[in-house]
Amino acid sequence: MKKLEDYVLTIPDFPEPGIMFRDVTSVIQDPDGFKLAVDTMTELVNDLDFDVVVGAESRGFIFGAPIAYKRFKSFVLIRKKGKLPRETVSRDYALEYGTATIEMHKDSIKPGQKVLIVDDLIATGGTTKAMIELVESLGGVVAGVVVLMELAGLEGRKKIDGYRLDSAIVYPGK
Amino acid sequence: MKKLEDYVLTIPDFPEPGIMFRDVTSVIQDPDGFKLAVDTMTELVNDLDFDVVVGAESRGFIFGAPIAYKRFKSFVLIRKKGKLPRETVSRDYALEYGTATIEMHKDSIKPGQKVLIVDDLIATGGTTKAMIELVESLGGVVAGVVVLMELAGLEGRKKIDGYRLDSAIVYPGK
Repeated sequence: MKKLEDYVLTIPDFPEPGIMFRDVTSVIQDPDGFKLAVDTMTELVNDLDFDVVVGAESRGFIFGAPIAYKRFKSFVLIRKKGKLPRETVSRDYALEYGTATIEMHKDSIKPGQKVLIVDDLIATGGTTKAMIELVESLGGVVAGVVVLMELAGLEGRKKIDGYRLDSAIVYPGK
Repeated sequence: MKKLEDYVLTIPDFPEPGIMFRDVTSVIQDPDGFKLAVDTMTELVNDLDFDVVVGAESRGFIFGAPIAYKRFKSFVLIRKKGKLPRETVSRDYALEYGTATIEMHKDSIKPGQKVLIVDDLIATGGTTKAMIELVESLGGVVAGVVVLMELAGLEGRKKIDGYRLDSAIVYPGK
């Protein structure tokens, strides 16, 4: 029987030389791979109590939406600046070169609501940390973070120290 | 009992003056609204036979992923140019000003596979038509298109004449 990691293709030097890109599309374009990914991530947070699933544009939507649906929760989007139509809160965070800004609707989380953050990947943890801060700026309580893949060598887990992080696949490298 | 359309907020003049923006985030940030949206769209294509669900970046992922999961199909992404790591096919299509390019992985659909295209919205149908052409360029057979919302006044349905289109909500205007 194929394991989840068997569905992941690795693309060397994408999007830049030296990066080993772990391709999530190869997992989801197989019915068994997609089901296994969603089921594994859902099971990892089976014991967690949460009201809202938050997913980040755009690969976070691929797993966040089915998990929210399965657990009968609301699904809230984190998007890049300027894409959400109503009043937002925003957060800047550092990229390797320059900064990026992410936004959430102000009314998308009520103070005290418990939030599960879903993404495809945690690398350095910069995006994940910005997502946590965005949720907390609305009064949300981060119950946990679940990702399909963790690049452990980049130490994203340290960056969100004190928060629960579940990863379906852990790669020791970068 | 609330109907699906009751969950849709309409934002006047977004992203440009004169546009009545139908906001899908207001539907999905309510657990009942999100479940109703996914269930309604899934039921609309209950009689359809398909192998692959295709969703377009990025709001297409929100509905395409749960539908693919529920029907135990593969989920294939259509993304903007330059975001997919492996060999792609691409399609240009006209926007109001300028053009856009969308891409799919070459190996994501096998010739003869039946494809369901999922999106949040059909407006003028330009994007939908480009998605159909992209699928067909790989030898895929478009079994149907399902959207949450159709802006009937923009006549997207005419632009994809001959293809089956199911819409969970039809707005008569633009």
